[in-house]
Amino acid sequence: MNTAIHFAERIKESMKNFNYHIPTDIYFGKGKIRVLGDKITAIGQNILLVYGGGSIKKSGLYDQVIDELNRAGVTVSELPGVEPNPRIQSVRKGIEICRAKGIEGVLAVGGGSTIDCAKVIAAGACYEGDAWELVLDARKITKALPVASVLTLAATGSEMDGFAVISDMEKNEKWGTGNDITKPVFSILDPEYTFSVSKYQTACGTSDIMSHTFENYFNRVPGAYLQARMAEGILKTCIKYAPVAMEEPDNYEARANLMWASSLAINGLISYGEDAAWAVHPMEHELSAFYDITHGAGLALLTPYWMQYVLREETLPRFVEYGVNVWGIDPEQEDMAIARQAITKTREFFDSIGMPSHLSELDIDDTHFDVMAMKAAAGGLAYGFVPLDKQDVRRIYEMAL
Amino acid sequence: MNTAIHFAERIKESMKNFNYHIPTDIYFGKGKIRVLGDKITAIGQNILLVYGGGSIKKSGLYDQVIDELNRAGVTVSELPGVEPNPRIQSVRKGIEICRAKGIEGVLAVGGGSTIDCAKVIAAGACYEGDAWELVLDARKITKALPVASVLTLAATGSEMDGFAVISDMEKNEKWGTGNDITKPVFSILDPEYTFSVSKYQTACGTSDIMSHTFENYFNRVPGAYLQARMAEGILKTCIKYAPVAMEEPDNYEARANLMWASSLAINGLISYGEDAAWAVHPMEHELSAFYDITHGAGLALLTPYWMQYVLREETLPRFVEYGVNVWGIDPEQEDMAIARQAITKTREFFDSIGMPSHLSELDIDDTHFDVMAMKAAAGGLAYGFVPLDKQDVRRIYEMAL
Repeated sequence: MNTAIHFAERIKESMKNFNYHIPTDIYFGKGKIRVLGDKITAIGQNILLVYGGGSIKKSGLYDQVIDELNRAGVTVSELPGVEPNPRIQSVRKGIEICRAKGIEGVLAVGGGSTIDCAKVIAAGACYEGDAWELVLDARKITKALPVASVLTLAATGSEMDGFAVISDMEKNEKWGTGNDITKPVFSILDPEYTFSVSKYQTACGTSDIMSHTFENYFNRVPGAYLQARMAEGILKTCIKYAPVAMEEPDNYEARANLMWASSLAINGLISYGEDAAWAVHPMEHELSAFYDITHGAGLALLTPYWMQYVLREETLPRFVEYGVNVWGIDPEQEDMAIARQAITKTREFFDSIGMPSHLSELDIDDTHFDVMAMKAAAGGLAYGFVPLDKQDVRRIYEMAL
Repeated sequence: MNTAIHFAERIKESMKNFNYHIPTDIYFGKGKIRVLGDKITAIGQNILLVYGGGSIKKSGLYDQVIDELNRAGVTVSELPGVEPNPRIQSVRKGIEICRAKGIEGVLAVGGGSTIDCAKVIAAGACYEGDAWELVLDARKITKALPVASVLTLAATGSEMDGFAVISDMEKNEKWGTGNDITKPVFSILDPEYTFSVSKYQTACGTSDIMSHTFENYFNRVPGAYLQARMAEGILKTCIKYAPVAMEEPDNYEARANLMWASSLAINGLISYGEDAAWAVHPMEHELSAFYDITHGAGLALLTPYWMQYVLREETLPRFVEYGVNVWGIDPEQEDMAIARQAITKTREFFDSIGMPSHLSELDIDDTHFDVMAMKAAAGGLAYGFVPLDKQDVRRIYEMAL
């Protein structure tokens, strides 16, 4: 595949046509849980409450949510125990409850995994076949119960987009799905709920936000200039505030900026008008499908290797913009030097927040590289910033060993 | 008034609570007019078409719109002739048509003035009293017909926000109104419709976009870091592309970036979480209320004087960020030197795109300064980046003579 020609053909493109549709209302800030009682009936009178482990019970958030739902007089069923990489089995359980109880709307309280699970439950409740079909083919989602969320982790952006990633660990499969129909009707974002997020999870969440931004930023449409500048703003925000939030977990300013960055990184704002086909996410999804590692850690690990691999004459301009605008590298230097420094700074940043830089640290060896590379390459990598095939992906995994 | 203390008290504030609600769908790009026929029934079957002078007839856009409306099979009434600073008399005329014809939705085709007029018609049609009452008090807008727009000028951002500015030239009054209810249901943004915009109007439109951004950017909430970086992205976009669009009117990339910047500058994205009380707009509204000058030109003229006037120790940090991040000024210099250079560069930029820098160029003298200053100061200037009273405003007008 002559990637250079393929790239050059498209690099001249100006901003592309797009349809902007971000219907989710956001209630952002301290104490915003108090709007829940007033707003919940927007998704129905008979609610399925979806959440993860015990953390929302420990923090008191569960009680606040129940108080608000009682105040609104809605009927509540519960699906607790959604996993960090949410399983199709949890989705199926939720769908059963929806059908048995005549659920009208799904409220997720938690991080991205919980919200993702809620979305596919909401779609699956309106679908006759098995929900895994919806995971494999987002086009089959043509109807869904309304979803809302109360967010407790700044990471996936699921609170303001239509996407959901669901795993079937029995098959080592992890795929993204969703569309406009599964965008939350509203989400409540109180940065204080993230004060209790550990250093490690704060770092993983930030890496996820940055990766979403990178996936959009490194695209083939240089004419989407405004979007690129917005993306740089999100990256600078992550770089500034992740260390602050890790050092001072209750620093409201840091938590607020990270939380809002998580939503804006992936709600469409920085991808509309571009032609972004994600690269690092498909590669990472194979890591977590086979080894159940934390998504953000896998992204932080792979990203700088991917950057090194795709850096070339044709991609140089965007790397130079990245180095100068995000890292403040002196623009007077030679372009390739700026690009290399930018990649080094990216690695150093992820190191500084405790992210792994080698697969061996996660006890991952090359056992499954061939099948992982094959599956990742099937995930649209041929249309990425630099088109990649399974050999390319395998080489990137090898660099990361 | 001890502004220094007032400012210092508030400068420590972190990101503020906000409710994000941007329901407008945007159809952006070449040929997007072709969605109009499919989407128009979202606002009704019986439509009032609002437009300005003859330019949309000359360009062929009028015919395209009528074709689409016919294709949709909707009934159409027309209000042509909306003025550049839209008059309350046009609003009243539109309301009469709405009542006489049982209009269900208002479609504006034009620039911000036309869309502003359409919004207040839509609100006035649902209001028993005179529409001027809605202009004087936005809280009286509690119901409105749905509005949609086809945009032909990158400037006011009216295509994606709830605001409208209406004038009564008999009284020399010009006020802003509007709220969430008057946000368009959808807007069609085809940058090609702006190819025919003159150099001067392109410059005025860009100045308006930049001023909206400045009004939000220079606020007292430094903790809204992400929003500030987004604002800088919009400013860089304007600075890069206004000269290109003026030199090559059919440069799609330039027109597309300016058009999208116009929407994002004022739809809430960069103001949510802040505490922005606009300063230069109220001062400019008096200029156009008394002298009917082009809004953008007045903004470009006043902005650098306002910057000079409010630059002081307490406001220095934001000016330094502005200079370094937007203008690329060397951060190693002394802070006050960076701030002063940033203001000089702002003036030089507006000069370079042909904006006036002295009121005398517009045949404006000090005749009405006292009453203008008094009215501007009543427009919320006491809550601005630096609180200003009527003496302050008069001094800024005098600097601008």
